[in-house]
Amino acid sequence: MTAYWCASAWLPDGVVNGVLVTESSGKITSVSVVDRAPAGAVVLPGLVFPGFANAHSHAFHRALRGRTHGGGGTFWTWRDRMYELAGRLDPDSYLELARAAYAEMALAGVTCVGEFHYVHHAPGGARYDNPNAMGHALAQAARDAGIRITLLDTCYLAGGIGEPISSDQQRFSDGDADAWASRVAELRPDDGFRIGAAIHSVRAVPRAELSTVAAFDGPLHVHLSEQPAENEACLAAYSLSPTQLLAEAGALGPRTTAVHATHLTPQDIALLGGSGTGACFCPTTEADLADGIGPARELVDAGSPLSLGSDQHAVVDPLAEARALEHGERLRTGKRGRFAPAELVAALTAHRALGWPEAGRIEVGAPADLVAVRTDTVRTAGSLAEQIVLTASASDVDTVVVGGRVVVRSGEHVLGDVGGLLTKAIERAWA
Amino acid sequence: MTAYWCASAWLPDGVVNGVLVTESSGKITSVSVVDRAPAGAVVLPGLVFPGFANAHSHAFHRALRGRTHGGGGTFWTWRDRMYELAGRLDPDSYLELARAAYAEMALAGVTCVGEFHYVHHAPGGARYDNPNAMGHALAQAARDAGIRITLLDTCYLAGGIGEPISSDQQRFSDGDADAWASRVAELRPDDGFRIGAAIHSVRAVPRAELSTVAAFDGPLHVHLSEQPAENEACLAAYSLSPTQLLAEAGALGPRTTAVHATHLTPQDIALLGGSGTGACFCPTTEADLADGIGPARELVDAGSPLSLGSDQHAVVDPLAEARALEHGERLRTGKRGRFAPAELVAALTAHRALGWPEAGRIEVGAPADLVAVRTDTVRTAGSLAEQIVLTASASDVDTVVVGGRVVVRSGEHVLGDVGGLLTKAIERAWA
Repeated sequence: MTAYWCASAWLPDGVVNGVLVTESSGKITSVSVVDRAPAGAVVLPGLVFPGFANAHSHAFHRALRGRTHGGGGTFWTWRDRMYELAGRLDPDSYLELARAAYAEMALAGVTCVGEFHYVHHAPGGARYDNPNAMGHALAQAARDAGIRITLLDTCYLAGGIGEPISSDQQRFSDGDADAWASRVAELRPDDGFRIGAAIHSVRAVPRAELSTVAAFDGPLHVHLSEQPAENEACLAAYSLSPTQLLAEAGALGPRTTAVHATHLTPQDIALLGGSGTGACFCPTTEADLADGIGPARELVDAGSPLSLGSDQHAVVDPLAEARALEHGERLRTGKRGRFAPAELVAALTAHRALGWPEAGRIEVGAPADLVAVRTDTVRTAGSLAEQIVLTASASDVDTVVVGGRVVVRSGEHVLGDVGGLLTKAIERAWA
Repeated sequence: MTAYWCASAWLPDGVVNGVLVTESSGKITSVSVVDRAPAGAVVLPGLVFPGFANAHSHAFHRALRGRTHGGGGTFWTWRDRMYELAGRLDPDSYLELARAAYAEMALAGVTCVGEFHYVHHAPGGARYDNPNAMGHALAQAARDAGIRITLLDTCYLAGGIGEPISSDQQRFSDGDADAWASRVAELRPDDGFRIGAAIHSVRAVPRAELSTVAAFDGPLHVHLSEQPAENEACLAAYSLSPTQLLAEAGALGPRTTAVHATHLTPQDIALLGGSGTGACFCPTTEADLADGIGPARELVDAGSPLSLGSDQHAVVDPLAEARALEHGERLRTGKRGRFAPAELVAALTAHRALGWPEAGRIEVGAPADLVAVRTDTVRTAGSLAEQIVLTASASDVDTVVVGGRVVVRSGEHVLGDVGGLLTKAIERAWA
């Protein structure tokens, strides 16, 4: 059993000063108000949040950071560069790269990552000896980095609506949705590893195959309406919006998360909200990739809970995503305070979207996930505790506890020099 | 004489590895390529940029960070809170607050600040014994923090177009533009302190007084079209846009910088660009205050050079402003690479806008302003040097040299604990 004394903590009912949290076997066993740290307690400085959920990650994209801004272009030309990188990965190099990327996430306060995983097979599509070798590498990477993972194993079958898979995309494809399901059924979860499903997009999964993926018993994620071109192609082929097509396939509902949800009609918003489908916004990616600003407030008001993701990892900083979510709302509406700070924290801690409904709150029975954010840095000095989610950044994260294990202390990861791990893994990926 | 050896440096023609920069009396005396650091040279890690110019600052707004997000509201309700703070300052408390705010800027790589200064007089409008006591406090604060300052002394005479000054605003006003000019004429520049003028806005300076301020011999700044309400009031009163009104008063031209320039017509853009008027964007403020995204690319294409400012200091991070400038372009156009990395660096180093045309480049004769940005952190690892302006942040700034003096080393300011200085100054300001 370990005791953590928090100078202040973000509890379900608000910020409380002097909070003692005890833990046993990775779960919180008590939460009490205690003025001073008892002897033997680990002292956590600043304001302690529940662990953050990074609800949308493509780990290998970390190797693209700072390498795609040389020319102009669009989302689609960026994707060519991304495919070039995807073509180079093998299970060993992916383990090394993902381990470093997940360690960077841990430093930023992430205690669980949702990995939207579609680089399944060898280049050209040949199966590895173990057809889940890449997925296992990702689970191992998270274990090594000290965080939990939900592997959102992604069905990817087509190069576009009515188009065959391209040579770049062959390693993503299982051939059909049944083969995808058979492979996924071989994955074995453990304490820190759960399994979910993903429809890559309505571009990559044909209409007739959608319901097979949607039948998966667990969290279901899908890239939705990130770019206007997807909407146009879907309407042209099916006379339905992507959201309407997913609804027809039975793919919407409370266990589903629509990722991006940028270019929606009012009808789409009503379908998503009315079905309780979640929405995962990735604001720094949606800016970097020139996607646009989606209707976050409207989705929440319609009934969609929000989560946040770092997606392509142009930035790995959940607090920056939360701030960018609110900034996007302000920019598109001319109003401030579109989301209350508590709503932003709810989005930061939406582990439910990854199939860990017990996580994301500092309360008895929850995983002992604690993120201590310093309140005395140049960034946070002077802020009210209740508003620090709008001023802090990953650089202010001091200590991260994941399931009762201290993974980050004084801003240092247990693996040591994560910048060095990243440099080495990225050089190898491009070598 | 001091020698600095840069592992790599951003020179006028691009990134060069192994650069020796020598300095004497605060100016660069040589720049040469040298493989290894000579004995006695100060080694600067990572990529060394010229010093950054923060072209738009209201130092006291730093005390608002993390204190204005409690409710909803608009720019105008935020302004009420800002006036409440402005009403509390005196020369001593302002010196303390601005010193800490400028030290935070130095840590982020700022070597010169443009302070848009309008809190001139005592509450109610009474003159201090020295009517420039507040301006002197700001100049002293910059000196203490180790950076240069251009005091953009701001004419502020009216509470709105055709409206008298309000009680909150009395301490901003000199009564008329001639009185403003007389007071400003008493300011004395020195090595690290230059003087510019500012028209607060077309809301705050009546049409008949504009040309008096515009006649100032030096840099001239003006808040321009930050909010649609300003445009509507100006059109209603004068049948002119704010840009057209400034043009009529002779206030546009190469020594003028239009701050924000958010809500412009194509005619406004042509007037600003055609006259060579600069534009200062403050992207993190324009997001925080729900202003909107201005037409940055169109302004540059029309002939307006860009600069960047942290304005209300919701964020103090020039690299974050540069990234947000490009992100804003991508979000509003659906295209990537709207500004080349070199254009973003040009905006970061636009000291010309503050009346220091000799600064902002690593070349012989320029002030010895050097900002070493680490390339091995979790944020920057793996980035190409040429693109690091899109991945680095203030947290990656290692060393800052201002006019040959090392002000920041290993991320520590010579004043010590800047977070502590900020906390103390902000508590005093609100006490």
